[in-house]
Amino acid sequence: MAIAPDILDRFKALAGPGGFAEDPETLAPYLIEWRERFRGRTPLLLRPRTKEDVAAILKLASETQTPIVPQGGNTGLVGGQIPDGEILVSLTRMRRILSVDPENNTMNLEAGVVLADAQAAAEAADRLFPLSLASEGSATIGGLLSTNAGGTNVVRYGNARDLVLGLSVVLADGRVLDLMRGLRKDNTGYDLKQLFLGAEGTLGLITEAVVKLFPRPRTVEVALVGLDDVASALALYHRVQEASGGAVSGFEVMPRIGLQFVLAHQAGTRAPFDPLPPWTALIEISSPARDPHLRGALESALADAIEAGGAVTAVLAESARDRAAFWALRDGLSEAQKYEGGSIKHDVSVPLSQIAPFIEEASRAVEAACPGIRVVAFGHLGDGNVHFNLSQPPGADRDVFLARWQEMNDIVHGIAHRRGGSISAEHGLGQMKRHEITRYKSATEMDVMRALKRTLDPHGILNPGKVV
Amino acid sequence: MAIAPDILDRFKALAGPGGFAEDPETLAPYLIEWRERFRGRTPLLLRPRTKEDVAAILKLASETQTPIVPQGGNTGLVGGQIPDGEILVSLTRMRRILSVDPENNTMNLEAGVVLADAQAAAEAADRLFPLSLASEGSATIGGLLSTNAGGTNVVRYGNARDLVLGLSVVLADGRVLDLMRGLRKDNTGYDLKQLFLGAEGTLGLITEAVVKLFPRPRTVEVALVGLDDVASALALYHRVQEASGGAVSGFEVMPRIGLQFVLAHQAGTRAPFDPLPPWTALIEISSPARDPHLRGALESALADAIEAGGAVTAVLAESARDRAAFWALRDGLSEAQKYEGGSIKHDVSVPLSQIAPFIEEASRAVEAACPGIRVVAFGHLGDGNVHFNLSQPPGADRDVFLARWQEMNDIVHGIAHRRGGSISAEHGLGQMKRHEITRYKSATEMDVMRALKRTLDPHGILNPGKVV
Repeated sequence: MAIAPDILDRFKALAGPGGFAEDPETLAPYLIEWRERFRGRTPLLLRPRTKEDVAAILKLASETQTPIVPQGGNTGLVGGQIPDGEILVSLTRMRRILSVDPENNTMNLEAGVVLADAQAAAEAADRLFPLSLASEGSATIGGLLSTNAGGTNVVRYGNARDLVLGLSVVLADGRVLDLMRGLRKDNTGYDLKQLFLGAEGTLGLITEAVVKLFPRPRTVEVALVGLDDVASALALYHRVQEASGGAVSGFEVMPRIGLQFVLAHQAGTRAPFDPLPPWTALIEISSPARDPHLRGALESALADAIEAGGAVTAVLAESARDRAAFWALRDGLSEAQKYEGGSIKHDVSVPLSQIAPFIEEASRAVEAACPGIRVVAFGHLGDGNVHFNLSQPPGADRDVFLARWQEMNDIVHGIAHRRGGSISAEHGLGQMKRHEITRYKSATEMDVMRALKRTLDPHGILNPGKVV
Repeated sequence: MAIAPDILDRFKALAGPGGFAEDPETLAPYLIEWRERFRGRTPLLLRPRTKEDVAAILKLASETQTPIVPQGGNTGLVGGQIPDGEILVSLTRMRRILSVDPENNTMNLEAGVVLADAQAAAEAADRLFPLSLASEGSATIGGLLSTNAGGTNVVRYGNARDLVLGLSVVLADGRVLDLMRGLRKDNTGYDLKQLFLGAEGTLGLITEAVVKLFPRPRTVEVALVGLDDVASALALYHRVQEASGGAVSGFEVMPRIGLQFVLAHQAGTRAPFDPLPPWTALIEISSPARDPHLRGALESALADAIEAGGAVTAVLAESARDRAAFWALRDGLSEAQKYEGGSIKHDVSVPLSQIAPFIEEASRAVEAACPGIRVVAFGHLGDGNVHFNLSQPPGADRDVFLARWQEMNDIVHGIAHRRGGSISAEHGLGQMKRHEITRYKSATEMDVMRALKRTLDPHGILNPGKVV
């Protein structure tokens, strides 16, 4: 359904000169998702500067029943931010840090602030805004909160949802719902902000937020540990949490094949162990204290783990350069797979107690279905989040392999689901998993989701075709 | 509106022998709130044993449009659990611990489990379930989650909401919404469990939960610190958080007059300082590590604070007995006020940066309105939660003083609100603050709350007259 020209004219008049664009060249970068999996189309891009602008846009959209798609930094991986003929509303011009309150450990900011800028503003006040992920140079606060983004330090600081104290949201009818409270305790009725966190812009548009800040870490230690199996990694996780007093800020596991890919394809990387053990854990512990004892606590926990068996070898970073080199191995895993042909990816989570059996069962199942397939299962062990990625058999036809995407999804998601897991740990549903999720959620859960959607967006104008 | 006898008969038939009660003697303890502020009435008490029982009750309630009030341990302070003619559904027979998964750091349990039993089950698995408050010997999980309970260690572990990974909820129409996932990352649509946490049973009945567990603390240090003013307490809070690596698990402030009341009325208490300073902070730090350095970190942070000014004196607990004695001073504050005549209480929160100016401004305002009034402002400084309690002027008439409850509320809540605060930090709205809250929330926020209520409880049968 195309939007009528006279309606588009009303939106343009509302936006004013400079507040909109419709030429294909300007629009192009907004219409393609960076993995190039989703390509969209829109008759009009609006770029509001204030929440009042957003309210006016949604008021008109509601009156004219015109669908809109909100977009932040366009870094989502499931197509949630890509329009299919709707008006596109980019919030990237709303990029003011409104205030920083170091005594309250909070920061108020607009939805279009880029994550790296938010981190820098916190740092300038000698505080940490802990949300951190690969796309932090482009991803915006509004998008990150709307998708309840994760990252590598969720184990310590929680998901994006856990970092939010307050929100301002424009509702489908253009009313501003002001929930900009910077409180750590507030039991005055339904916690409405929770509705919009993780809703991917389908229930309202987040325009401002109050986020939590933390003391900056002053001691950071990083280690790599060679392990026989994933079960040993989980035991090690609990051991290090206890020994460090809960100081674990990253706990990643990497399979031998994943490190082999990184070492083969990423310049400047070096094998931490020779030979490489079946699994390697990357452990980061950190503290806001200048704590010379933390390293010793980590060292003795690792020594104990090796003596207890399961862990076979370990190396601690001696410098910031070492720490960066250790993390580079982990950060290179996704990229390195590109050089090994087609890959079919999964972003699942399971209870921590199910990680090892899940990886074992799912590996056997995909190997049986596709002999020669290479399982590259890695991820955030402390959160139960496994990026269960599959590289094609060496020499196989890439397109033939990729044509089996859904088949592999069904196998892997089915096993994760039976083990109490989720088919989307951190990436969301967007367009990509909107239909698939109905197979894994109960009819009642889907019904309640749809009832909320109808209540808050009765005309279905907010990011239609996404999530529900 | 009385419930017709034939309808009551259908509920009794459903509950079966032993599943209901209607004699006044059995009902009496369910109908009075422990501060005796709310007295209720009901024609029928139902005591289901399973979530299927609860589902059948709500199915019938929905069909017959019969209102029900859910109740846990009957420890709420705002009348949320007290019926006014509705059928009362007590969940206290649903008290099974369903499973404990120490590897996943989770526990599955029924709504009627008493908090102390939940804590014990976690401890038996060498884990900590951190939720802790004065009524833990009676309060049940269902009630605690429905009210998003707080307590003294929110500063470390968050509110009840933050401790929940999964829920099972019976909806108004009797359908079971099964969200019993034990996952730390799950971005598959709207996070529906958030709706029911803190909703005080007005949107659905929580019947089971998956809660988070933590490593048990093996090192605990407690100190009392004498301070000139509240601003110095806040500076001390940040200093100790940094020095201890975020190990603060309790940070309470107490005014001189509050300690004087405790020392005068509670047998066995001893003054920590002579003379008593204007303010005393109680600091607890703890760690799952056996960490001999933690005490030293606290000692040097306190020495630094005294050198910097504001903090004037400090004493560390030398034993478990000392720690208990220090906490007894704090725990005695509410009780001790009873011996000083009538008291008017407030449970407000403000941003941490507003605590000191809030206490100063509100104290001046109530003293101007009621000369001789004694302000006993204490609470959880790390959460911005102040129990701003007012004891009557010595010798004044108790009833005349208590008749000014609403006037004092208006003064105190108004100042908290203007400073970005909340009129109910941890106790909820219930009946007590249901009308008052409409003065402090925007029309839009109230509208959205009411729209959610209509969506999930179209006949208004769930805990009517509470929250919205």
